[in-house]
Amino acid sequence: MESEHAPRIPELSAHLIEAGGKRLRPVLTLAAAKLCGYEGDHQIRLAAAVEFIHTATLLHDDVVDESAKRRGRPTANILFGNQQSVLVGDYLFARSFQLMVETGSIRVLDILAGASAVIAEGEVLQLTAQHDLAGGEARYFQVIRGKTAALFAAAAEVGGVVAAATEAEISALRNYGDALGIAFQLVDDRLDYGGAAAAMGKNVGDDFRDGKATLPVLIAHQEGGPEERDFWSRVIEDHDQSDGDLEEAHRLLGAHRALDRTTERAAEWGERAIAALDIFADSEMKRALTDIVGFVTARAR
Amino acid sequence: MESEHAPRIPELSAHLIEAGGKRLRPVLTLAAAKLCGYEGDHQIRLAAAVEFIHTATLLHDDVVDESAKRRGRPTANILFGNQQSVLVGDYLFARSFQLMVETGSIRVLDILAGASAVIAEGEVLQLTAQHDLAGGEARYFQVIRGKTAALFAAAAEVGGVVAAATEAEISALRNYGDALGIAFQLVDDRLDYGGAAAAMGKNVGDDFRDGKATLPVLIAHQEGGPEERDFWSRVIEDHDQSDGDLEEAHRLLGAHRALDRTTERAAEWGERAIAALDIFADSEMKRALTDIVGFVTARAR
Repeated sequence: MESEHAPRIPELSAHLIEAGGKRLRPVLTLAAAKLCGYEGDHQIRLAAAVEFIHTATLLHDDVVDESAKRRGRPTANILFGNQQSVLVGDYLFARSFQLMVETGSIRVLDILAGASAVIAEGEVLQLTAQHDLAGGEARYFQVIRGKTAALFAAAAEVGGVVAAATEAEISALRNYGDALGIAFQLVDDRLDYGGAAAAMGKNVGDDFRDGKATLPVLIAHQEGGPEERDFWSRVIEDHDQSDGDLEEAHRLLGAHRALDRTTERAAEWGERAIAALDIFADSEMKRALTDIVGFVTARAR
Repeated sequence: MESEHAPRIPELSAHLIEAGGKRLRPVLTLAAAKLCGYEGDHQIRLAAAVEFIHTATLLHDDVVDESAKRRGRPTANILFGNQQSVLVGDYLFARSFQLMVETGSIRVLDILAGASAVIAEGEVLQLTAQHDLAGGEARYFQVIRGKTAALFAAAAEVGGVVAAATEAEISALRNYGDALGIAFQLVDDRLDYGGAAAAMGKNVGDDFRDGKATLPVLIAHQEGGPEERDFWSRVIEDHDQSDGDLEEAHRLLGAHRALDRTTERAAEWGERAIAALDIFADSEMKRALTDIVGFVTARAR
């Protein structure tokens, strides 16, 4: 985070990074490397690189979404302005590649450059498709694979790569991260409609107000009769909302058990993540990676 | 520029890339590689990577500066919105690293990741220091080295690296690019006060209206009496401007030959760029790189 010439860079980065957050992605890198018996120290640079990429995307997302709150505090774009958020995000992104270069592994750079491209692609896709109900679950999963699961998958995978694990192990770690990332985003999208979210510093109802076609909405829309579909079409596709619409949305989500079913789907993806680890013998790190799945899916209960 | 899932990406990228521009930076990579006798094809990927980094920074700059016009056309942020500009910039930046990975050269990744970090640092520094007259020329050169010369230097340097040139040749190419980049920015900052700028699609007077302490202003401030310094302090440092101030600025710039002297400084840096090439024997590519210096500095006349 340091910068010799621009002291605003560590100041702004620290605002976001020191606010906490779960540090899930870098933990995946560290745990995956240790699981595969790695005894060097390159995994530390990679874990930092992964967290920098994540932080850069948060800085840019908050500009894109015009968010006012993140992790229970005012966002950097509110405190420092959009300009600083865009440029400091760029700086952290470039620094993350410098950290990867220090490991000397082209394969690591390939994986994380690829993930970065997929993340940006997923965000652009979300921007153009977020109000679209017709794309259904296929489109939804395409978006969350890009914007969330890609970095989880890459974070776990590079832990295996730096440890020179077997191709089967590296592939298992990638599948673990992918499934965990999907479970994580499903839980996030469910919590946006209430639950333990207040404790996370999230603004409940943001996705509804933004007219985002997340999985709970897609389930209720899919299962609803013509009148219900008209409602969803108005509030999501046309993004035409008025007082009482959020309450009506909650009533329809409840009628179709859409929030519970989203939680169930998250649990299924959590099971897939755990199953991906079957290839590894029991160990402290395998139990840690399994526990992370429980931590992620339990947030929804 | 392609994207399977997000067609908006090639659309927005093409808006900027097909608008033309001088393609100076990728030409440096291609010419440097050929100058050093390279016969492979990796220089093409690197030239594209360099232009992608440049395009990504333009997209983000236009968001940061709230620009309305670039290369004579409406900017992408005006046509497509800030959100798309931020995210498509991120995408091009990630794609540029994928192109570098294809060359298999960690050194190339090191050079261009380093340049990317320096560019972002220079932009952040410019944002916090742009109205500051006290920093003087030292601060000014620090900013333009970061925001402009770093990518020119890296573009030329990676051409030598991919050609497996000697360290002396690689260093010469880097020095050439650095000096050329500084000359280029000096000319740009001079043209912002008029001249051939109309033909470039630039908005004359933008730097003054933004209160930027560019070299012409620093020269006039440095040489002016107390009243003149008060004027510059008000319009640049306090960014408090009213009708007639731009005319007054032009009068003071003229009185101290500040625009001509900026042009002369650019010519000096151009000479340094040409001198850096002394290590190379005469060849078609050496003459091409020399001609580029003439092209860049002649814009100011």
